[in-house]
Amino acid sequence: MQKLDFQQTAEFLRNCEDAYILIHQSPDGDCIGSGYSLQAVLRQLGKRAKVLCPDEIPAKFSFLLPDTPEEDFTPQTIITVDVADQKLLGCYAEQYGGKVDLCIDHHISNQFYAARTLLCADASAACEVLYKLYRHMGVQFDEPIAKCLYTGIATDTGCFRFSNATAETHRTAAEIMEAFPDIPYSLINRWMFDVKTPERMKAECAMIQAMEYHFDGKCTMVCVTQELVARTGMNPDDTDGMANLALQPEGVEVGITVREREAGVYKVSMRAANDVNVSAICQTLGGGGHVKAAGCLLEGTLAQVRTLLLDAVRKGLENA
Amino acid sequence: MQKLDFQQTAEFLRNCEDAYILIHQSPDGDCIGSGYSLQAVLRQLGKRAKVLCPDEIPAKFSFLLPDTPEEDFTPQTIITVDVADQKLLGCYAEQYGGKVDLCIDHHISNQFYAARTLLCADASAACEVLYKLYRHMGVQFDEPIAKCLYTGIATDTGCFRFSNATAETHRTAAEIMEAFPDIPYSLINRWMFDVKTPERMKAECAMIQAMEYHFDGKCTMVCVTQELVARTGMNPDDTDGMANLALQPEGVEVGITVREREAGVYKVSMRAANDVNVSAICQTLGGGGHVKAAGCLLEGTLAQVRTLLLDAVRKGLENA
Repeated sequence: MQKLDFQQTAEFLRNCEDAYILIHQSPDGDCIGSGYSLQAVLRQLGKRAKVLCPDEIPAKFSFLLPDTPEEDFTPQTIITVDVADQKLLGCYAEQYGGKVDLCIDHHISNQFYAARTLLCADASAACEVLYKLYRHMGVQFDEPIAKCLYTGIATDTGCFRFSNATAETHRTAAEIMEAFPDIPYSLINRWMFDVKTPERMKAECAMIQAMEYHFDGKCTMVCVTQELVARTGMNPDDTDGMANLALQPEGVEVGITVREREAGVYKVSMRAANDVNVSAICQTLGGGGHVKAAGCLLEGTLAQVRTLLLDAVRKGLENA
Repeated sequence: MQKLDFQQTAEFLRNCEDAYILIHQSPDGDCIGSGYSLQAVLRQLGKRAKVLCPDEIPAKFSFLLPDTPEEDFTPQTIITVDVADQKLLGCYAEQYGGKVDLCIDHHISNQFYAARTLLCADASAACEVLYKLYRHMGVQFDEPIAKCLYTGIATDTGCFRFSNATAETHRTAAEIMEAFPDIPYSLINRWMFDVKTPERMKAECAMIQAMEYHFDGKCTMVCVTQELVARTGMNPDDTDGMANLALQPEGVEVGITVREREAGVYKVSMRAANDVNVSAICQTLGGGGHVKAAGCLLEGTLAQVRTLLLDAVRKGLENA
């Protein structure tokens, strides 16, 4: 395993041929923007390149896809972007997981599964890493590439809201917007952050109405039971933003979303607003994750799961 | 009425004494950040300065207020920031409206009511104008000033989401964040954009549940009746974000929020997602505003008001 810098990565890309660019399962704006911008850049260099995603690209990101369909070819080079772990390659993990020639990523948790890795853990998004890389390569930016990069950065930072948005992130956005003033950035942001299906809006309402407040409002819990799913027609796997709902109320420190996977099996998402380490709390329950976003899987009745969770959160709040 | 450039404005501020800084009624992050940053800057120059707001500063902005209370004095200079029209000075309009020595603003609709005006209509926020002005003045930035400016810019752009966020806006944010890395920007954003009172969350749910879809979902309408207000305990004047709720559903072009002011009197907020000119629609109903955010006041029964609005919106959609 070799760690590359920007110059070495640029060199590798200039010399590679016939690349498959793999992105992660449950694709988000950052891996999609990364994948399709890199495809465009490699094509600009006269190479064949094709993005492979283990899951379907959600319709809301279709504006990032190129108009011309991708021809098929036998790959000589396997590249992953925004993929911290080869397990995240889903159905492609077995075939390509052990054969990745280059991984470009920004996750501090990167498993260094690739032969070569360009990792910038202080970058807000893989698209921020790629912007810098393309500058190194002297890429001729165009609107499709700029659109991909802006969207990746905006979505991974919650539109510049989260703590991963740095001065460098804003400077990158400024340079992209200056170079391509005609891209409808605010419309992209509306599609990415504001627009919801009526079903999603109703599901959120049902979750808010089902929200429990514990420990003087320091902890919220939303139990998404199969009954709630059936009643609202919501997609229980549509976690995007749902787990953050529990953090909305004023004064909350820990927000818990409990989803009933099957009878007696509950998938728990835990979010921290400030200083409580929810990764440590979830570890006591056999799970794990990041300091501010973690999870675990619990079995039992909903009452048992609730008691387990509240006991663990009480201790976590005391330790904070 | 004199239009000033940055150099002239800097000159004026350097020479002024004992300034009252007036901000607009229903204060938002931009006018509060503008007012208190300017107060800090003038104090840094050894001058007496005091912010006056016609309404109480909402608690969520209290972190922008200085620790030391403002002493009182007789003003020799009246300055307004982020105030497009002297009417917006509320209870101070009569006393000071005609005596404003300097207005610093970014609204294209500025009425030039002041003796001198620095207007940058392409700036996202008054705080973006002030950042540039302070650079001209050679101000020694500190954390309180930086916090004010970041908050003003973030709030006026919906956290860099809206079309007023430009390359210059992002560059300003980058410079502030680079100079003051210890300000908890993501926490500020959480307070400003994510945190809601449980009452507000419930009110939004009630509005979503009351949402009507017209013209194949191209137009939504939410009627905030006195009954709804009483049932949810919501504050019907809490327009911040409420009018935008009607724009959330996928495919909507025009979102209408109708608030029952008193029996038979309805305050209408109209928002456009894309190309429909809601200012023109509201003008046909005796109102007005911006192209994407307008309003009017209608009288009658709710059924009459609904018919009036839907007729006007139908024509507006046909014209778009």
